[in-house]
Amino acid sequence: MIDYMALLTGLISIVIAITFGVYIRRKSPGKGEMVEIAGYIRKGAMTFLNEEYRYLSIYIIIVAILLYVGSLFSRGISSYTWIAFVFGAILSALAGNFGMRVATLANVRTAKAVEDDIRSGFKVAFSSGAVMGLIVVGLGLAGVSTIYIIFSSLPPETLSNIMFGFGFGASSIALFARVGGGIYTKAADVGADLVGKIEAGIPEDDPRNPAVIADNVGDNVGDVAGMGADLFESYVDSIIATIAIAVMFAALGADIVLLPLIIATIGIVSSIIGILTVVAMRNNDPSKAMNWGVIVSAVVMMILAGTAMYYMGMGGLPVGKDSSGNLVKVPWYYVYTALISGLFAGIIIGFSTEYFTSDKYSPTKEIAKASTTGAGTNLITGMAMGMLSTIIPIITVSAAIMIAYYLSGLYGIAIAAVGMLSTLGMTLSMDTYGPVADNAAGIAEMAHLGKNVRKHAEHLDAVGNTTAAIGKGFAIGSAALTALALFATFTESVGNINMEISDPSVTVGIFIGALMPFLFSALALKAVGGAAEDMVNEVRRQFTEIKGILEGKAKPDYNRCISISTNAAIRKMILPTILAIIVPIVVGVTPGLGARAVGGLLAGSIASGFLLAIYMANAGGAWDNAKKYIEDGNYGGKGSDAHKAAVVGDTVGDPLKDTAGPSLNILIKLMSIVSLIFASFFIL
Amino acid sequence: MIDYMALLTGLISIVIAITFGVYIRRKSPGKGEMVEIAGYIRKGAMTFLNEEYRYLSIYIIIVAILLYVGSLFSRGISSYTWIAFVFGAILSALAGNFGMRVATLANVRTAKAVEDDIRSGFKVAFSSGAVMGLIVVGLGLAGVSTIYIIFSSLPPETLSNIMFGFGFGASSIALFARVGGGIYTKAADVGADLVGKIEAGIPEDDPRNPAVIADNVGDNVGDVAGMGADLFESYVDSIIATIAIAVMFAALGADIVLLPLIIATIGIVSSIIGILTVVAMRNNDPSKAMNWGVIVSAVVMMILAGTAMYYMGMGGLPVGKDSSGNLVKVPWYYVYTALISGLFAGIIIGFSTEYFTSDKYSPTKEIAKASTTGAGTNLITGMAMGMLSTIIPIITVSAAIMIAYYLSGLYGIAIAAVGMLSTLGMTLSMDTYGPVADNAAGIAEMAHLGKNVRKHAEHLDAVGNTTAAIGKGFAIGSAALTALALFATFTESVGNINMEISDPSVTVGIFIGALMPFLFSALALKAVGGAAEDMVNEVRRQFTEIKGILEGKAKPDYNRCISISTNAAIRKMILPTILAIIVPIVVGVTPGLGARAVGGLLAGSIASGFLLAIYMANAGGAWDNAKKYIEDGNYGGKGSDAHKAAVVGDTVGDPLKDTAGPSLNILIKLMSIVSLIFASFFIL
Repeated sequence: MIDYMALLTGLISIVIAITFGVYIRRKSPGKGEMVEIAGYIRKGAMTFLNEEYRYLSIYIIIVAILLYVGSLFSRGISSYTWIAFVFGAILSALAGNFGMRVATLANVRTAKAVEDDIRSGFKVAFSSGAVMGLIVVGLGLAGVSTIYIIFSSLPPETLSNIMFGFGFGASSIALFARVGGGIYTKAADVGADLVGKIEAGIPEDDPRNPAVIADNVGDNVGDVAGMGADLFESYVDSIIATIAIAVMFAALGADIVLLPLIIATIGIVSSIIGILTVVAMRNNDPSKAMNWGVIVSAVVMMILAGTAMYYMGMGGLPVGKDSSGNLVKVPWYYVYTALISGLFAGIIIGFSTEYFTSDKYSPTKEIAKASTTGAGTNLITGMAMGMLSTIIPIITVSAAIMIAYYLSGLYGIAIAAVGMLSTLGMTLSMDTYGPVADNAAGIAEMAHLGKNVRKHAEHLDAVGNTTAAIGKGFAIGSAALTALALFATFTESVGNINMEISDPSVTVGIFIGALMPFLFSALALKAVGGAAEDMVNEVRRQFTEIKGILEGKAKPDYNRCISISTNAAIRKMILPTILAIIVPIVVGVTPGLGARAVGGLLAGSIASGFLLAIYMANAGGAWDNAKKYIEDGNYGGKGSDAHKAAVVGDTVGDPLKDTAGPSLNILIKLMSIVSLIFASFFIL
Repeated sequence: MIDYMALLTGLISIVIAITFGVYIRRKSPGKGEMVEIAGYIRKGAMTFLNEEYRYLSIYIIIVAILLYVGSLFSRGISSYTWIAFVFGAILSALAGNFGMRVATLANVRTAKAVEDDIRSGFKVAFSSGAVMGLIVVGLGLAGVSTIYIIFSSLPPETLSNIMFGFGFGASSIALFARVGGGIYTKAADVGADLVGKIEAGIPEDDPRNPAVIADNVGDNVGDVAGMGADLFESYVDSIIATIAIAVMFAALGADIVLLPLIIATIGIVSSIIGILTVVAMRNNDPSKAMNWGVIVSAVVMMILAGTAMYYMGMGGLPVGKDSSGNLVKVPWYYVYTALISGLFAGIIIGFSTEYFTSDKYSPTKEIAKASTTGAGTNLITGMAMGMLSTIIPIITVSAAIMIAYYLSGLYGIAIAAVGMLSTLGMTLSMDTYGPVADNAAGIAEMAHLGKNVRKHAEHLDAVGNTTAAIGKGFAIGSAALTALALFATFTESVGNINMEISDPSVTVGIFIGALMPFLFSALALKAVGGAAEDMVNEVRRQFTEIKGILEGKAKPDYNRCISISTNAAIRKMILPTILAIIVPIVVGVTPGLGARAVGGLLAGSIASGFLLAIYMANAGGAWDNAKKYIEDGNYGGKGSDAHKAAVVGDTVGDPLKDTAGPSLNILIKLMSIVSLIFASFFIL
């Protein structure tokens, strides 16, 4: 019953998302130059997606065959796993595709709507965010419940393996969307900035810059589709991990097995209420409206979840077995507290992100001040602040898992991840709003819309920057907690082998695991660096060869820049993809390493990946805002030496926060899920 | 017998070091301006040391009291541990002090000697390196053997604890010397570069720059005293860890307990032979001469150690006990291979460092190329290369500990560390040569010596840059391996508690452990950033207020700059010091965490610290050499846009490679040794 209800809720969420989409489509896109520019952006985005799908389908086919063949060799891999894998991949791709289509409709409509007032524009932009939010949770929950409904009669290990296949599919899309999208967006952005702002001295979002369309496409590719796929993965993985832990303990009782579906269902309802609150509010402050939305959905979710669990858990909830195999039951509020600890951890990480990246607080201000003594001190201070900013998230997640574990065992850790992601429908709406507003501001600028329109659009963009930063922190935190849940599932699933930390195979596993995020980041940064260089050379070429381009008399060749970004994104993803999948398998089957080393590998990769991701996201965000703070007239304002120094910091921070950092979210989840699927091949 | 022989060898090494010192002192220091400048540098270095000693003595007294009080509360801490602590601290301080005194004599004498030819100058500079190399191993081995001779009749746990006290003392000095010295040197260097090179357009090492003396003092403080103390610590810790593992397995037999002393003795003999080879060679290529020295000492050491172990291990060497408590004996060549695996790991890491930082190879060339598109791409590419460069060291150390463990258990891991550090006398001579040559080139430049002299001095400096980079890699690798040996000792010493990686307390330990290097680096970078800003403002002030300074008519106030660096170094070290000591203790005594979490803490800190240190050292080295590569006339040469971009990269890399990175070597060892000493207080 509960599983069907979850499926239904998922479908309702999809319907509402589509409704929002139709609402946006019916809005006026304006006319003239703005429509033309939006057309370029939309076409560029679709070009990237189509190119990505070509490679993606090859990848999906190869992995599906691999899984199928694997199932012939080991009973540990179900013969249905490959189907679930394809299903998961398709759903995630669908979510990203739909979200991005709507986002590329909404940007120009937002620019048009702000002609009236801020509020109208905000409504369009936020609605397109809501499409992404609701389609992700809708397809996610519908997908997981479908898998559960079809396969729940199979033995626990088989069911789990099939579900992991679904998660693996979602991970794969996320990898392509996040890593590829990240490379795309920053190759364009860095390239555009380097020549445009620094050399040619033309402003951001100037249509004379040949890379400017690619830059705006990138916002959609990276921040809309990439972010959506990342969180789709976290969302389904957290639910899957919880169900797997519950069924693998065997006979914990249907209630506790289905609890994550109940929570997710409640979460969607709460998110919809939150979204409607935002849309309905007659408040002219978009930031306040969204904050209210988040608060409303969190409170509704806490009340409904508490009520549901109170009725479910009258006689205590079973969360595990003790060493003699007896069920351990705990009061319902133990599990509830574990759930809430995740929810709160997400909120605290969001606040911490804001503190470290907003120019209202001292870290960003210090970076701005350090810019007065040059790019060197700007960069050193930014790095220091980024590293410092890892404390709160690490301590918060540590505290959450300790609380969850002591109250409800490993099940508690998984349910904490579900709790953190339960109101994703609302939070992702807010995250996706950002890049749409950013695009709208870009279009307003490029199409030379009226001063008032541009001011409104820029205000929406500024709000979006804050929500985007918070969203990034949330995405990292939830990736870490989800990966920890998968890690707990892994240690559970390989049974009683000894994973002593003093065992050198475990230590070596930790070393290699901690190495992976460095390696992954290096490849991502190299890809951006290389593609940005190509972009710079192309832009320089156009500036020299196409006469009249800087006077605005001739049109730059946007497509060349788009294809530089697209090609770089696709080609440079192959090696990281292979690494993320191969390394856990190789470690697992190598004599002397084996499953114990994989345990170390996962723990090491989560710790190092979490830290690096936070560092990169926050340093990048702070550099960005330090630059904006100076542009607001501090330390000499635009054009001053301090500003030039801050632009360098921002350029460096861009690929850190939007390419390398986010790709680590995927890496740590993907390695965990690969280990889970192939665990039966590992040497114990 | 063996212990007395080790003591004697240590003393002989000290005598030879003093002899080299006397030889240098007798050389002519030249006359006029060069003597004056060298006097400033020497005085500045001593000012820093004296200031450091003031704080250091307070710290030593507090910790000694803490250890004494601790011994009253727990039998786990010996009542002699505090004495060993003070002893270790004094020996390390002595080594640093002596080495730095000689280095500040040798710099100007090198500059004088190159008047004749390169070879004469090289001999002086390398001899002063040999002083540092031999005094460090001499005092290290003499100190450990003395402790062993006095206390070996006590129970194994007590003896171990006393030895850890000795290591803790060495760690403490290393912390002050490395972290303080690192902050000092880079505050001066970055400050000098920012205003001098970038703003005022005057070359490096120009006496018109008020921060230039502080910069040259910094080379001595950071690269001579800091490096020496770091390796002194690794050297004694590796020996101590091996003895501790041997005695704690109980009755492994005197041979195996004293093996590290035998190896160290043989290592000193081999180093002396290597050093004499370098000094005696009539080769005009300093780089080749030193390479021969390294090869000779490594080969001699391998032959002698093999012979000794062959005779010791006729009936097999006991390396541990099996689960039923029986001695496990292995053939002598098992242990020998473990030893050699460490030695080779050190060499491989050295090569890897050279590959990633020398402008002969593609990574540095790519960074130089990326500079043509601006500081942004220079920085992004450098970061990517630095991250990529972590692969070989991580895989190498992983392979070494796997080999060592499978052949000789945890004892094997410790003996591998001893093997890596056995020929430290030779390698440290080579490392210390670098900063002396650097100073000599600086003095030649500042004192406007003849063109030929400067060319010779610069050649010596260039060779020194390569050896310094290799030395840095070696220092990090040996710190990691030593920390792993201490970690193995820790897991052994807390006995049979379960440190399952799936236990959330262990996971949280790994998280916090992995966090610590980020935190430590952040504090170090903030300190440099802040002090560099002060320095910049001071230099700017002098340029405006002291008339005629840029025309060379008025003298800058060097002392103001020296005291800015000194104060920053001392004040900004307090928080990191407290953190490194307090965190392991707090984690160990916190309910819910305890000894298991400390296990995770150490593993996490070693993995993350090792990675970050390699990343920072290599990225910094590569930025430095990319700049020099451009200065050699590539991509437009000095003054081009590419050069300006590369200068920014170098400025950022400086505190990474010389402050934050090296301080992590200390952090990971210090946390391990603190955990070992206070283990008896931890919750099991």
